[in-house]
Amino acid sequence: MTLNILGCYAATPRSFTNPSSQVLEINNHLFLIDCGEGTQVQLRRNKIKFSRIKHVFISHLHGDHCYGLVGLISTFRLLNRESELHVYGPKGIKEIITLQLKLSNSWTNYPLYFHELTSKEPQMLFEDERVSVETIPLDHRIYTNGFLFKEKPGDRKLLVHKAREYNIDVSLFNSLKKGKDVTSETGELIPNKLVTANPVPPKSYAYCSDTAFYPQILPQIKGTTILYHESTFLEDRANLAAPTKHSTAKQAATIAKEAHVEKLILGHYSTRYNDLNLFKEEATEIFPDIELADDGKVFQFD
Amino acid sequence: MTLNILGCYAATPRSFTNPSSQVLEINNHLFLIDCGEGTQVQLRRNKIKFSRIKHVFISHLHGDHCYGLVGLISTFRLLNRESELHVYGPKGIKEIITLQLKLSNSWTNYPLYFHELTSKEPQMLFEDERVSVETIPLDHRIYTNGFLFKEKPGDRKLLVHKAREYNIDVSLFNSLKKGKDVTSETGELIPNKLVTANPVPPKSYAYCSDTAFYPQILPQIKGTTILYHESTFLEDRANLAAPTKHSTAKQAATIAKEAHVEKLILGHYSTRYNDLNLFKEEATEIFPDIELADDGKVFQFD
Repeated sequence: MTLNILGCYAATPRSFTNPSSQVLEINNHLFLIDCGEGTQVQLRRNKIKFSRIKHVFISHLHGDHCYGLVGLISTFRLLNRESELHVYGPKGIKEIITLQLKLSNSWTNYPLYFHELTSKEPQMLFEDERVSVETIPLDHRIYTNGFLFKEKPGDRKLLVHKAREYNIDVSLFNSLKKGKDVTSETGELIPNKLVTANPVPPKSYAYCSDTAFYPQILPQIKGTTILYHESTFLEDRANLAAPTKHSTAKQAATIAKEAHVEKLILGHYSTRYNDLNLFKEEATEIFPDIELADDGKVFQFD
Repeated sequence: MTLNILGCYAATPRSFTNPSSQVLEINNHLFLIDCGEGTQVQLRRNKIKFSRIKHVFISHLHGDHCYGLVGLISTFRLLNRESELHVYGPKGIKEIITLQLKLSNSWTNYPLYFHELTSKEPQMLFEDERVSVETIPLDHRIYTNGFLFKEKPGDRKLLVHKAREYNIDVSLFNSLKKGKDVTSETGELIPNKLVTANPVPPKSYAYCSDTAFYPQILPQIKGTTILYHESTFLEDRANLAAPTKHSTAKQAATIAKEAHVEKLILGHYSTRYNDLNLFKEEATEIFPDIELADDGKVFQFD
C-alpha cells in the first residue's frame, strides 16, 4: 500500500503548495482521492501514469478538492484514453463536468461514468476480490464524505515443508491456501492449520477531509491501519475551526487515538502556518505515531 | 504597456509549463487575458496583485483557456475582495461559474458581472478615457474571440519655453495640452502647433489565440503595436494545424507582416516541440521582429 500526496494544503493558493489530491496504490489499484486545481500537473511531476487511474473519489464540491477534475478528464481525452473512468462524488459533480465538456465541444472519447452520492450513511462504492471502498460520512459545511479503502484478506500462507511432511499432493495446495482441510495421500484428514499460517493482515486506509471533529466516524474507522485526517488549524485557532467545520491537529489526534489506528497522517493545513512541525508537536501529545503529509511525499506501508 | 506571460503552452499538461493566461498592464489597468488551470498560482509566482485585476477576458471555452477561472474567482472570495470583477467571455461562461459556486455554497461576497459574447462581429467591450478593449472574432473549432487593447491618444506635449516666449498665461496651459489655440497676454491668437508637440503615439496590443490562419482580422489589427498570435505548430505539422484550426509560426508571421504590426509575439506552442527557437526561425523568414512568449516572461513596451 503506497500513498502519494499530490497536494495537502487548504484553499488559499501559494506559489508552491497544492490543494487536496492524493493517489492511493492498494493491491494494484490506483485510486485518485480528491482533485484540486493543478492535480494533473502534480501527477506528471510525481511520474504517476495517467492511464492507471480508473477511479476518482471526490470528497466534496469545495473548489480545493475538485477544480482540477475537469482538466484531468479533458486531458485523458487528449491522450486518447480508451479505458473507463469512474468518478464518485456528491450529487452535482456530473452536471459540473458535463456542462463544461459540452460547452467546449470536447466530449470524452472514452467511457466516463459518474456515481453521484447523496446518502448520509456509509455506502459501498467499489468492491472486487482484492479491495473495497466505502464512504465515511463527515461533518463539513457542505455534503462531504471521507473514504475507507480496505484490502481483503489474502490466501493463507502455505508451509510447503509441512505439507510435504504430511504427504499432501501438490494439486491440493490451492485448497490449503483457501483454508480448506484436505486428505493426504495416505488417506488421513489433515486440518488446514497444521500446514498453513495466517495470511498477511489486510491493510486499510481512511481519508477524512474536510471535517469538523466528528467522533461519529469512530465505529467505522476503528482499527484502520492508516488514517489521513485533516488538521486545518492548531488549537490556537480552535475558534476558527468550529465555525468553518474544520479540525485542529489535537482533534485529529484524538480521533486517531480513540479509533486505535496504527498511524495518523496530518494534512489540509491552513496556509497561514509556516512551520508544519507545530502540527506534529500538538498531535503527538495525544497520539504517538504521527506523520506529516506534504506535497510530493510518498508513504510506503509494508 | 507591460505584458506578463503566465502561461503560453497548448493544452496537454507537462510538469513545468502552463496553459494560456497573461496579464496586460496598460495605462494603469491590469487586464487578465485567458485563465487556464493554474493561473492563480502563476499570478502569485509572478507577484501580481490579485486585487488589481478588475477585468478578465476569456477567448473561448476550451479548458486550457478557462479552467482556472472558477478557482481564481473563489480565491478572490477567500481574500475578502470587495471590488467589482467583470468577466467577458463566450455565452455559457456564466453558467459554468455560477453552477460551481452554487454547488460549493460559495457565492462571492463581491460584485461579479458576466458579459457574455455571441457576436461574430468586432464588439467594444470596455472603454474609458484612457483605453478601449474590443473583440477580434477568430476562426477556431468553437466560438472564439481575440482581444484588441488600445491606448487612447494622450495630451499634446506642452513646450513650456515656447509658451512663455509667446506670453501665454499659465492658466491656459491645460487648453494647449488639449490641442486648443489660445490668446496671448498681448492679445495675439497663438496656433496650438507653435507651442506644443505631438503626444506619445498610443500603443495597442492584439491577442489572437486560438485561431486558424484568418486574414479577415487584418483590417482590424492593421498597424497594431504588438501582436500576440498563436503558433501551435510549425509548418512540418501544417496538416495538423488546418483540421484543429490552429496556426503555424509561418502563418502567424504572415498575419504580422500583412497587418504591418511593429512586433509579433509567438505563443500557444504544442508541447510536442522541445525547442522554441524553431518557431522563431520559421517566423523570422517572413517577418523580422519576433519575440517568443514563455511562462513567466515579462515584455515591457516603452
